[in-house]
Amino acid sequence: MFEQHPYGKLISAYIDQAEFPDRPSDLYDPIRYILSLSGKRIRPMLVFMGAKLFGKEDTAEVLPASIAIEYFHNFSLIHDDIMDKAPLRRGKDTVHQKWNDNVAILSGDALLVKAYQELGKCPADKIGELLVVFNQVALEVCEGQQMDMDFETMDNVAEGDYIEMIRRKTSVLLGGALQLGAILANADKVQQQLLYDFGVNLGIAFQLQDDFLDVYGDPETFGKQVGGDILCNKKTFLRIKTEELATADSRSELDLLLQGSDISDDEKVFRMKKLYAQLAVDQYAEDIKQRYTELAYNKLDEIAVSDAQKTELRILADTLMHRKR
Amino acid sequence: MFEQHPYGKLISAYIDQAEFPDRPSDLYDPIRYILSLSGKRIRPMLVFMGAKLFGKEDTAEVLPASIAIEYFHNFSLIHDDIMDKAPLRRGKDTVHQKWNDNVAILSGDALLVKAYQELGKCPADKIGELLVVFNQVALEVCEGQQMDMDFETMDNVAEGDYIEMIRRKTSVLLGGALQLGAILANADKVQQQLLYDFGVNLGIAFQLQDDFLDVYGDPETFGKQVGGDILCNKKTFLRIKTEELATADSRSELDLLLQGSDISDDEKVFRMKKLYAQLAVDQYAEDIKQRYTELAYNKLDEIAVSDAQKTELRILADTLMHRKR
Repeated sequence: MFEQHPYGKLISAYIDQAEFPDRPSDLYDPIRYILSLSGKRIRPMLVFMGAKLFGKEDTAEVLPASIAIEYFHNFSLIHDDIMDKAPLRRGKDTVHQKWNDNVAILSGDALLVKAYQELGKCPADKIGELLVVFNQVALEVCEGQQMDMDFETMDNVAEGDYIEMIRRKTSVLLGGALQLGAILANADKVQQQLLYDFGVNLGIAFQLQDDFLDVYGDPETFGKQVGGDILCNKKTFLRIKTEELATADSRSELDLLLQGSDISDDEKVFRMKKLYAQLAVDQYAEDIKQRYTELAYNKLDEIAVSDAQKTELRILADTLMHRKR
Repeated sequence: MFEQHPYGKLISAYIDQAEFPDRPSDLYDPIRYILSLSGKRIRPMLVFMGAKLFGKEDTAEVLPASIAIEYFHNFSLIHDDIMDKAPLRRGKDTVHQKWNDNVAILSGDALLVKAYQELGKCPADKIGELLVVFNQVALEVCEGQQMDMDFETMDNVAEGDYIEMIRRKTSVLLGGALQLGAILANADKVQQQLLYDFGVNLGIAFQLQDDFLDVYGDPETFGKQVGGDILCNKKTFLRIKTEELATADSRSELDLLLQGSDISDDEKVFRMKKLYAQLAVDQYAEDIKQRYTELAYNKLDEIAVSDAQKTELRILADTLMHRKR
């Protein structure tokens, strides 16, 4: 939905012309490969939007930080896919699947270093400040991924811990991308924080919506298999809330569905949705998503620039939160 | 041999008091663990020595870059050990062995980010320049590790490619550590390059000696099993040179030793050493090690500071190159 955005084109053009050495080929081919799968490029676009919000129009000065965010995001995809044993990414083989785990570990490492190389191309007087935010975000993304893996083997995950996990694993990168832009535009710390908070809250709402759409999305437009999370027993917000609210009856139905091997896929999804409806966790998920969306909009409202300058970010948020897939 | 050096104490004291979060424990415990295994801390000491060479005595300003090098080195050990399936590191379980591969991937990633966090604590006007060198070194280390893995499955590795592999995998980090120190001491580019070249050439000589000592070291002082590289068919400099120089007779003896499963360990080491002697690859290895050592000393000679100021680095080089283990 953002592929034709001018920022998206700048980002894609830079990545298309970026030259990585030919050899060692098993180090650089996977980097070329993952970057060619592209995706929506929302995160690097946020750097431009954060800068523009505070009046920075010079895209050349913003581009390196934007690319650093995109490289970091792709590094994290390569490594997460190893850890999650994921065979597919954006409909294509994951790096570890196409090559092997060692190649994925090392090319991911190199791509993380390339992210810092881009950061080093930012205006010299800004590098220190950018580095502090970038590193903090990068560490929290690692922490979020570890929490996510820890949850897999835990009997009970608290709602608050789940929100904290998605905050670190996915949302801080959105907030951080916006903040890098704000730094490049000389925004003060208070304004930086408001914009960061806007991004983080929007990110949490977006992730909650992702959990929701996996169950309730329109199969025509969703892109992935609807009910996929239910079928692989993924600990989504809906599942965690169901565990928390389950009565004796619904608890035994839940256990049956989680363990049951003689239940067809369609029946498992149907019965789980029924359980969600009985416990009203679908409505609860909608409500909490709405709460984080409003928090995000409130932060955006507080930012000390004209409403007109906020239009771009408001459109982005509206588009993300009303998306059907 | 350097544990009691004042720089070594500064480094250890900093690492001992460094606070990593308690949770997620599987992210930070492995970092605390690998750093506690310590090692010789030669690389971070080189940052101090590089700075001191050009008159920088303020250790507080040099410490963050020194720690960044040590964190980077330990990150690379964690990930290399996964890729090499190594069970032991410094006589203790490797991280992936003590925990698992996923924990090792992610805690390694976090430690790499921590390295950049330390770099961000360096004097603000130096961060950009430090980052350029650090990133270049980090990428070359990744390239060297990939080359090393590529060599495992290659029939023939050229001597020049082997040297290039050890240059990137291990030597550039020594040169880069020294150069970070030189940058912090305001040395100009020419002086930085000379010091970098000293470190890189010394590193190559050191690695060649490592290959040599694995075969010819004194079992009393070597610390590892003498002949270990021969027993696991490792493609060391001696092995590669033997492949290159082998006559028909020695070629069949070599193949026999590489494949033979009914040869005892002692006999395999004995016969491989005999082969090395016949082809004079032991002498060749000595000669080329000597050549890189001299190259290193020549670079040190060229540096435009007094001989007295070079004493510390000369002692370091002498100690490293005459070491028995």
